[in-house]
Amino acid sequence: MKLLEDKILQDGRVLPGGILKIDSFLNHQLDVALITELGKEFYRLFSSARVTKILTVESSGIALAFAAAQCFSVPVVFAKKGHHKNVGSDVYTADVFSFTKGIPYTMTVSKAYLGAEDNVLVIDDFLANGAAAEGLLSILGQAGAKLAGIGIAVEKGFQPGGAQLRGRGIHVESLAIIDAMTDDSIVFKAQ
Amino acid sequence: MKLLEDKILQDGRVLPGGILKIDSFLNHQLDVALITELGKEFYRLFSSARVTKILTVESSGIALAFAAAQCFSVPVVFAKKGHHKNVGSDVYTADVFSFTKGIPYTMTVSKAYLGAEDNVLVIDDFLANGAAAEGLLSILGQAGAKLAGIGIAVEKGFQPGGAQLRGRGIHVESLAIIDAMTDDSIVFKAQ
Repeated sequence: MKLLEDKILQDGRVLPGGILKIDSFLNHQLDVALITELGKEFYRLFSSARVTKILTVESSGIALAFAAAQCFSVPVVFAKKGHHKNVGSDVYTADVFSFTKGIPYTMTVSKAYLGAEDNVLVIDDFLANGAAAEGLLSILGQAGAKLAGIGIAVEKGFQPGGAQLRGRGIHVESLAIIDAMTDDSIVFKAQ
Repeated sequence: MKLLEDKILQDGRVLPGGILKIDSFLNHQLDVALITELGKEFYRLFSSARVTKILTVESSGIALAFAAAQCFSVPVVFAKKGHHKNVGSDVYTADVFSFTKGIPYTMTVSKAYLGAEDNVLVIDDFLANGAAAEGLLSILGQAGAKLAGIGIAVEKGFQPGGAQLRGRGIHVESLAIIDAMTDDSIVFKAQ
C-alpha cells in the first residue's frame, strides 16, 4: 500500500539491531487519518471473508483493529498482556516471547468474547518472527473459532513469520512488506 | 449520555470490591459503533477548545481517544506503561498507583510527541481516584503543554478524582457518572 510505504520512508527510522521505529504514526503517536485508511484497506482485502470479529493484542494493534472494525461493523477483542485480575479466571491464554522487549509474556482473552461461532480476522501492527500471531492463533484454536485471515500493517519480509504462516495456507495480507533494511535505506517488496 | 448509561445498565456487571466490569464493550471487547459515538460526543463537548492533540494511556483509552481524534482531526499520543526500550531515553515519565491492579507503574511518553505548542485533550475510559489522570497531567506539565480538558467515559462519582480535578478549575466531562453502585443497581448522576 503506497500510502503506508511512503509514510514509512518519510517518518520511519531504522535503529541498530534491525528495529524499525514507526512510533511517530503507528504505535505511540497515532496518525489517525492514516490508520483510518489502513482500516479501509484491510476491509477491501478481507471483505469477502464474512468476518464476525477482529482479534488483536494490546496495545499497538488496537487502533488498527478499531479502524478496520468500523468498516466491517464487527466488535474488536484485544488480548491482554499478562494475567489480569479484572479479566477473571475463565480465560484463554498463550505464552509468547517478545523479541522486541526480550522477555516472555502471557496473552489473555476472556472466554466470553471468542467462541466456535466466530470467524476471526487477526490484525496487528508488525509481523516479524510471528510470535504474537502464533499466540493469537493458539487462542483462536482454544476457542474453536475459525480464522478468516491475518492483516498486518508492516511485515519484515526478511524474518520468517510471514512465510511460515502463508506456508500453512493462511491468508496473510501485509500492507507494507520490507524486503531489506539498512541504516539509510528501506526496500519494499513489490505488491 | 443516555446511550452509554443504557449500555452500562444492560451489559455492565458489578463485582465485589466496587469494581464495575464493562469489558464486554469498552476495555477488552470493543463495541466499535458505541465507541465511535462516544468519540463524537467528546468532540461535541470540547469542539470549542482548539485541541491539537489527544493524550491517553494504554490500553483501555486508545480506542476512545482514536474515535475522538477522528472527529478532531488531530493525532493521538498514548502513554506507555513501564519503561520501554523502544521508546528511547528522551521521555517524560510519571509514577502512578493503579488501584485496579493494586500496583504502581510508570507512564512514559516520548518528548518528541508532546511540546509547549500543544493544547491537549486528555481522554480515558475510567475516572475514580484520579491517579491515571494525575499522571497524564504531570506529563503535560513536563512538556509545558496546555490542557484543553479531560474527557472520561465512566466516572465513579462516589470516588474523589472528579471533584478534585474540577476543584482546580479543570474542564472535566464524563459521559456517564455513577453516583452509587450496589450488586444489583447502578444509579447515575443526572446530567
